[in-house]
Amino acid sequence: MPSPSERGLPLEPGAAIGIIGGGQLGRMLALAAARLGFDAVVLEPEPDSPAGRVAAQTIVVPYDDAEGLRTLAARAHVVTFEFENVPAAAVAQLTAMGADVAPGARPLAIAQDRFEEKTFLNANGCPTVAFAAATTGPEASEAVARVGAPALMKTRRDGYDGKGQRWVEHAADAADAFAALGGVPVIVEAACEFVRELSVIAVRGRDGATAVYPLAENHHEGGILRRSSAPAHVTIPIADQAERIAARVLSGLDYVGVIGIELFEIADGRLLVNEFAPRVHNTGHWTMDGCEVDQFEQHIRAVAGWPLGPTAATAHVEMLNLLGDEAATWLRLASEPETRVHLYGKREAKPGRKMGHVNRVRPL
Amino acid sequence: MPSPSERGLPLEPGAAIGIIGGGQLGRMLALAAARLGFDAVVLEPEPDSPAGRVAAQTIVVPYDDAEGLRTLAARAHVVTFEFENVPAAAVAQLTAMGADVAPGARPLAIAQDRFEEKTFLNANGCPTVAFAAATTGPEASEAVARVGAPALMKTRRDGYDGKGQRWVEHAADAADAFAALGGVPVIVEAACEFVRELSVIAVRGRDGATAVYPLAENHHEGGILRRSSAPAHVTIPIADQAERIAARVLSGLDYVGVIGIELFEIADGRLLVNEFAPRVHNTGHWTMDGCEVDQFEQHIRAVAGWPLGPTAATAHVEMLNLLGDEAATWLRLASEPETRVHLYGKREAKPGRKMGHVNRVRPL
Repeated sequence: MPSPSERGLPLEPGAAIGIIGGGQLGRMLALAAARLGFDAVVLEPEPDSPAGRVAAQTIVVPYDDAEGLRTLAARAHVVTFEFENVPAAAVAQLTAMGADVAPGARPLAIAQDRFEEKTFLNANGCPTVAFAAATTGPEASEAVARVGAPALMKTRRDGYDGKGQRWVEHAADAADAFAALGGVPVIVEAACEFVRELSVIAVRGRDGATAVYPLAENHHEGGILRRSSAPAHVTIPIADQAERIAARVLSGLDYVGVIGIELFEIADGRLLVNEFAPRVHNTGHWTMDGCEVDQFEQHIRAVAGWPLGPTAATAHVEMLNLLGDEAATWLRLASEPETRVHLYGKREAKPGRKMGHVNRVRPL
Repeated sequence: MPSPSERGLPLEPGAAIGIIGGGQLGRMLALAAARLGFDAVVLEPEPDSPAGRVAAQTIVVPYDDAEGLRTLAARAHVVTFEFENVPAAAVAQLTAMGADVAPGARPLAIAQDRFEEKTFLNANGCPTVAFAAATTGPEASEAVARVGAPALMKTRRDGYDGKGQRWVEHAADAADAFAALGGVPVIVEAACEFVRELSVIAVRGRDGATAVYPLAENHHEGGILRRSSAPAHVTIPIADQAERIAARVLSGLDYVGVIGIELFEIADGRLLVNEFAPRVHNTGHWTMDGCEVDQFEQHIRAVAGWPLGPTAATAHVEMLNLLGDEAATWLRLASEPETRVHLYGKREAKPGRKMGHVNRVRPL
């Protein structure tokens, strides 16, 4: 058997695929990889992680541990990740050691900085709300004055599920908000009166081929995704805009793998891009029971250099996240004939923690 | 968290399910268990096995290793298996140590002896070909004379995929055939002029609830399953007979889990039972892409004491086994939009070895 660095693409079955991150997305990626005959090698700081428990091998180290990354590169020719805050230095080290990291360093770097992200989107013909960057209190006031109050101030880096952001009602409050967010570089975004939130899950292969799933309509509560309904009922112009946005983002990033792009549908019929995540996405979980090939297998196919699979819907799905102790209702959920149960094997049900999801399926 | 022996049924997510056997069936069971939030603990003599590589823990020991079985019973409250030749002593030991083995000792004991199996079937109102047992050469001649030549002589125990059996054209050849099979106890079966081979995959829960999948039509080559087509086109009387057979076998065995029952459809419109396998079954692989809940999740649900899932078909599937180096065509197969690829991660493609399967899906 050739060593990983001698392997070419497409990656042959039996090879190992590295996954950085041991949460539920890593777990579902590992399960999809296994279905295609691959071994999953997970790098994750926590022992006994959801993904580690279904992987052929787990490397339990911090994400930037040089020795751990060396082990990963030695085992896996292709390395991917389940979350976007992978340290840039880790990707650089893996690449230097001959590992093929997909999606690559550039999509990660852009996605890690909300200002870079929106700047990239606009430069690639994808509309967003008005925005401005700030690194001081006075700059923050000026930024709010520029985009108009009320505005949403967010740290440029880190933050997820509604953390690291706050509303600014008047420009005069901007400096306080800036200080409250820690005095770190921020982005100020104009408020968006959207009709609804949609998302598009798309994929691009090593050969540049792309495929797009039907849109999902999403509902958040307290900054956390509550449910998705797909395929969303949308007009043809909306579907066309989403496809165009996906195509521009994928080619602009020279992307490989699955991407999740969050969209606002506004009253004038346009779509604005809220943000993208360079990975499989919670609003794509419906594809597991509603599409020909789901987003997890699709991502594995793309990073392994395999041909993309079909993305057509086979059913209508209402995806519901199970947060915290909602997962304790598994017995009732498992007894509903239309409900497919997916649980992540997390040991502790903290409030708001994503413990699993269900897909409620009905014919198209 | 309660220790395994303190856990009741239904088994809560996060618990461990023991699987004896590390082949592809164990692998697909482990993947299904993971989807429901369970840990899989695999006991298997070979290191680096297909199931071991997706399990939370692998115990690499012979199937009857007392210490290994003790570890398994300590980790897993519920233990199941992927093949029927689990030593009876191993099951007895597991049970004595408080593990709940499903399906239990009796279905295993009956399935391990072809004479016991057919005797059980007839006693429970399930028709088979005529058969007779023999333990000596003269008895073998008498048995062939009784059921009529040509007849099929099989060892009562072991043997699979067409091994351990031979045709006897005349009663005079019976003693030679008996000797050629090793002089071990045999069963002699009347030849069966069947129209086609069908199978029914059925399941019974801890509470006695049962469910039956649509029938599959199967084609063997050289004693090895080549392909299955499902749902098979059958008349209502045929479907009714299959359901009745499944119900009788499941209740007669006081069974828990998925069972595969192989059937001959004969010219007069009757179904004869060829044999059953007390486990998930190769002719049920089509359910992975053609049914609401597949046979692997169904088996996990049953042994864990969960409610059974629905078994209706959502698509028509042609399942094709990938034998030996046929799996080398994975790239072509992955590029067919109607084809779902399942590869088992086996390291070596020996001739006739089941390396994977594909499900070719089309709308019902």
